[in-house]
Amino acid sequence: MSRHHTTRFTVEFGDCDPAQIVFYPNYFRWMDAASLHFFRAAGLPPWRELEAETGILGTPIVDATARFLRPASYGDAIDVRTEIVEWRGKSFVLSHIIRRGDDVLVEGREVRVFARRRPDDPARIEAVAVPESIRERCG
Amino acid sequence: MSRHHTTRFTVEFGDCDPAQIVFYPNYFRWMDAASLHFFRAAGLPPWRELEAETGILGTPIVDATARFLRPASYGDAIDVRTEIVEWRGKSFVLSHIIRRGDDVLVEGREVRVFARRRPDDPARIEAVAVPESIRERCG
Amino acid sequence: MSRHHTTRFTVEFGDCDPAQIVFYPNYFRWMDAASLHFFRAAGLPPWRELEAETGILGTPIVDATARFLRPASYGDAIDVRTEIVEWRGKSFVLSHIIRRGDDVLVEGREVRVFARRRPDDPARIEAVAVPESIRERCG
Amino acid sequence: MSRHHTTRFTVEFGDCDPAQIVFYPNYFRWMDAASLHFFRAAGLPPWRELEAETGILGTPIVDATARFLRPASYGDAIDVRTEIVEWRGKSFVLSHIIRRGDDVLVEGREVRVFARRRPDDPARIEAVAVPESIRERCG
Repeated sequence: MSRHHTTRFTVEFGDCDPAQIVFYPNYFRWMDAASLHFFRAAGLPPWRELEAETGILGTPIVDATARFLRPASYGDAIDVRTEIVEWRGKSFVLSHIIRRGDDVLVEGREVRVFARRRPDDPARIEAVAVPESIRERCG
Repeated sequence: MSRHHTTRFTVEFGDCDPAQIVFYPNYFRWMDAASLHFFRAAGLPPWRELEAETGILGTPIVDATARFLRPASYGDAIDVRTEIVEWRGKSFVLSHIIRRGDDVLVEGREVRVFARRRPDDPARIEAVAVPESIRERCG
Repeated sequence: MSRHHTTRFTVEFGDCDPAQIVFYPNYFRWMDAASLHFFRAAGLPPWRELEAETGILGTPIVDATARFLRPASYGDAIDVRTEIVEWRGKSFVLSHIIRRGDDVLVEGREVRVFARRRPDDPARIEAVAVPESIRERCG
Repeated sequence: MSRHHTTRFTVEFGDCDPAQIVFYPNYFRWMDAASLHFFRAAGLPPWRELEAETGILGTPIVDATARFLRPASYGDAIDVRTEIVEWRGKSFVLSHIIRRGDDVLVEGREVRVFARRRPDDPARIEAVAVPESIRERCG
């Protein structure tokens, strides 16, 4: 059974475009925020603390995709249900299902890696194998 | 041979996040803008005029995806090279290759439809078969 | 005594800039959203219904200002306390005090008007005297 | 005679709201970007280099204000004309006049300080007196 977390957002007037519906890049903004809330809810400390402990400084994005099934507009409350659906060697896949009530509006996925500074060049970062301790907490 | 159009953007400080690199949803913002610049460059009139002529009021998004290969930061000039790589019955696929100089940063794709108001309910919209006249200009 | 309304927002990673703090235009985004939530809480119907009833289609901005006293960063919950502090002939002044807990972060003000379509040219809008019924509800 | 710099932006579809006009916080986004372009044009190095040289790591915002005179919509090219109109002890005032062609759309002002890390606590920042060398270049 997989751990999941749901983050609620309110669609504001300024999130919508002249077609009166959500300007679609905002869904990725909400998915990005939902990813971070997912990690917090799983018990991971803020990135800054995690870096001190494990060297990991965040989860850079590798790939993002979304299917848009129904539009939303301002005043709508939307729920982003996030879970990790696949662990690969150095990357992992987050699923984000965005609903308004029971209606699915968007099906999104993000592929991310855990990254740390390169020992030979701290100005650059590199992907690391997912630490087992993190994997256990995120399920 | 395919028609293509390149739109240049400058990455601003406010487009970047605490990791010092572009906050990824902004790439979709630039792809959306590049799509519209592509249609203008192909000779399509603004949506408002097109609606009077053909009933078409825009190109809602159906699916969006991006692979992130290299990061960018503020001060960078980036070029989005846009072309239509596939025509389907009622939808079409835009490719957006985002470069900084010769380096490819992001490979994006958007699936869109041409939409008009539903004759039976003007408050709702529906996809229409791509008009041949538009296809010729954008092809 | 003045009616007021408080709207809570969460500062997300993507709301912050490379200096690790909120990119300041986002405070205006939150003030704009707080204005709309203020009007809803005061019992005003959505703009679309209000237009059918009174001809008023929204509250365009005339002037906006903010003093930035303390920074905020991602993970912070912020509260925007909104009230109307002055009624003028055709405009009115909203005060937005943004706090994190007891600390005031930002003191903002917006001057807005109620607008309707011009009878002689519906593509343009004009400010109208504030209807007494709205003024009473927003008091 | 005062040095000034003009930065051009294109208003995109996604910069506009359901009222079909620019969502006003975007004007502050453009002013913030114009400030940075002003400093680059005046010959200041990127903040990172400036910090190594002078300890100054940026120009945090203290106060921002804008008067909105005319709306703009997507497809419009807008020019932000930026200059420093006042030097105070530790702060300075930037004027941003935003035009479309000859029409003034927005009159904006930002008050900023030059900031460095506090010697006693590098995690915090403090305003410093404006260095004469910077003042001369931006004058």
